[in-house]
Amino acid sequence: MKNIAILGFGVVGGGVADLITKNCAEVEALGGEQINIKYILDLRDFPDSPFAGKVVHDYSLIVNDPEVDVIIEVMGGSHPAYEFTVAALKAGKSVITSNKEVVANFGDEFLALAEEAGVCYRFEAAVGGGIPVLSPIISCVKQNKITEVRGILNGTTNYILTKMFSLGDSFEAALSDAQAKGYAERNPDADVLGTDACRKIAILTALVTGKLIPTDKIHTEGITGVRHEDVLMAESVGLKIKLLGRCLVKDEGIYAMVAPFMLPSDAPLAGVNGVFNAVEVAGEPINSVMFYGPGAGAGPTASAVVGDLMEILRSGRHYAVPEFTKGDIGVADFGGFRCRTYISMVGVCEKCVESAFGKIHVIGTEGEYAFITPEMSEAETDAAIEKLIGRGGELKSRIRLL
Amino acid sequence: MKNIAILGFGVVGGGVADLITKNCAEVEALGGEQINIKYILDLRDFPDSPFAGKVVHDYSLIVNDPEVDVIIEVMGGSHPAYEFTVAALKAGKSVITSNKEVVANFGDEFLALAEEAGVCYRFEAAVGGGIPVLSPIISCVKQNKITEVRGILNGTTNYILTKMFSLGDSFEAALSDAQAKGYAERNPDADVLGTDACRKIAILTALVTGKLIPTDKIHTEGITGVRHEDVLMAESVGLKIKLLGRCLVKDEGIYAMVAPFMLPSDAPLAGVNGVFNAVEVAGEPINSVMFYGPGAGAGPTASAVVGDLMEILRSGRHYAVPEFTKGDIGVADFGGFRCRTYISMVGVCEKCVESAFGKIHVIGTEGEYAFITPEMSEAETDAAIEKLIGRGGELKSRIRLL
Repeated sequence: MKNIAILGFGVVGGGVADLITKNCAEVEALGGEQINIKYILDLRDFPDSPFAGKVVHDYSLIVNDPEVDVIIEVMGGSHPAYEFTVAALKAGKSVITSNKEVVANFGDEFLALAEEAGVCYRFEAAVGGGIPVLSPIISCVKQNKITEVRGILNGTTNYILTKMFSLGDSFEAALSDAQAKGYAERNPDADVLGTDACRKIAILTALVTGKLIPTDKIHTEGITGVRHEDVLMAESVGLKIKLLGRCLVKDEGIYAMVAPFMLPSDAPLAGVNGVFNAVEVAGEPINSVMFYGPGAGAGPTASAVVGDLMEILRSGRHYAVPEFTKGDIGVADFGGFRCRTYISMVGVCEKCVESAFGKIHVIGTEGEYAFITPEMSEAETDAAIEKLIGRGGELKSRIRLL
Repeated sequence: MKNIAILGFGVVGGGVADLITKNCAEVEALGGEQINIKYILDLRDFPDSPFAGKVVHDYSLIVNDPEVDVIIEVMGGSHPAYEFTVAALKAGKSVITSNKEVVANFGDEFLALAEEAGVCYRFEAAVGGGIPVLSPIISCVKQNKITEVRGILNGTTNYILTKMFSLGDSFEAALSDAQAKGYAERNPDADVLGTDACRKIAILTALVTGKLIPTDKIHTEGITGVRHEDVLMAESVGLKIKLLGRCLVKDEGIYAMVAPFMLPSDAPLAGVNGVFNAVEVAGEPINSVMFYGPGAGAGPTASAVVGDLMEILRSGRHYAVPEFTKGDIGVADFGGFRCRTYISMVGVCEKCVESAFGKIHVIGTEGEYAFITPEMSEAETDAAIEKLIGRGGELKSRIRLL
């Protein structure tokens, strides 16, 4: 018999408890062992829950109980999740999490501790909700030279952008709708400012490159600057706007970023709508594969968590990540990142824009002067914009092209 | 040091040899062992190849060499691939294959033999080319109640249908183009008649249900009956036509089939174009996840084969398939399968169609009478069509709706 404890009895914790209970026979048949939920840690009591008798408020009960084999941390946030995880691993208990924040900040430390203690640390649910992403990517990494991982990593912002495209909503209207539907928090900053996607691309980058880049070294933009006008401009030239997390592996180093991108309507990621997530991996010789599915929600997330549990019970294995260490070694200067960019300005003339940017592709001249630059480095684009601002121009929008 | 042998030095075999050689250091670092390609079996000689010295023509050299640990069978076809695989497993050698035909026909036997001999039999490349599909699906199966697996499993037919939609090509013109580009064989029957997709859905069905259904029990239609007129009708109501392999797990049993389906343009599978493949898995609580990528080609297929090799070297593990035994136990009568159907007939009147089908949705009346039926069982649809034919009607087309 294997005893487990669940830290946090919110939506995800409840989903995990339900799924383990419901699929118990199957889970046991495949894992080969009986599974018993021994404790559920939460600040609250749940007198009406079938799990009421398992709820405790003191973590030391759990971490000091030698019978507990696996701890499932679904509390979210960095603290006390960090302290609880360290204590669990040091006590020789395997840990599973859906908490991207704590993985993005401390995943390297946890993996080293787990290795030392001979236990497992797994976090499939931290990226892409229920989509099996991490394990297949790790498989791909081994025999491929990965050149890029990119994805729609946040369902809330994708829902908002989808509404802005399909219904012509403004950002504010789409956000209100997402909040009304429960897709966006009352304080939507972590989603709309790109913080959530940034944590996930940090984790994906670590899997592909072996380096856990500090999140503050990842260029991060949210979608608050995406205007209805930009949506219309994009549509007029067959492009869609998506908030992408990207990690590119180049000769000069790693570019990791979160930002809105314009991409062709027939690109695989352009077809990912609503609250769905998708992760695309490109490399040689695999070409490009994509994983698509629900990026959040109690059921899908619980499925990923219980998948990790099965894997631990069956094989007692870590992810076979080559290395996963902290360090910005290998992070390229973002100023050197090259792409084409959609820019919209007022107070500029065609001649001055061309003198600053070279051969541009003009897509709109009414009210604002909207154009797409040639491929340039970020530093060159910055300089050209500065030049136009110096001559009285005003920047309304700047969105990179994929 | 691990010695491997490659059976078949065609496009895939060459890709595998190249990939192992190129990524040798990485592969060894992760697999933990040196890898040596000791033999390549082919009828031909390859005097100009860097692997010329490894080519042999006699399989007994390989199977009787106790130094050979893993055999990679990329010959294709049922025989002698079947005999070679049996001999290899009985000799205690692990086997990896990209050959869907032999897996669909004998996979159960191979897995049992491998189990007995304590070696591995893996076949990730047999479905979806380079897309990591099988391992993630097996992970999903464990903690989910899978209700359906469906996919675009054949790149050639998807390329042809894409051309018919995007360029308005006829089937014949699109097929010629696919042949000219090397996507379709000179004899395209295995692709266009659905045989190839049938083998792949047989394998997927086995992974999900534990039963390897004989391929002749899988209702299989190709795309040769899809006409340009049907494409136009589908487009007029926002539908696309895709050749799908489907396995539905229902209370009354398993429905497994390959057939063209009409699906909404915004469905995830509708966005899969050209030679790409995709597999969608639906279940509880995972909702729906999709895997997308290149379904064929030397590079992607080699990536999947070498992925299996890494897995064997690292963990010596099989797929953890709950069971994978032969038998049609649980296959439901296809006559009970329920769906809406697009039907186009001549020589019928609205009144007689309605008397046969009930409330239909008429989508075209010029030349042919085209309509979509309500949800009915296959047997009911058959009977209604027969009724109309009995009254002088002629069936021009019948395509199910997803």
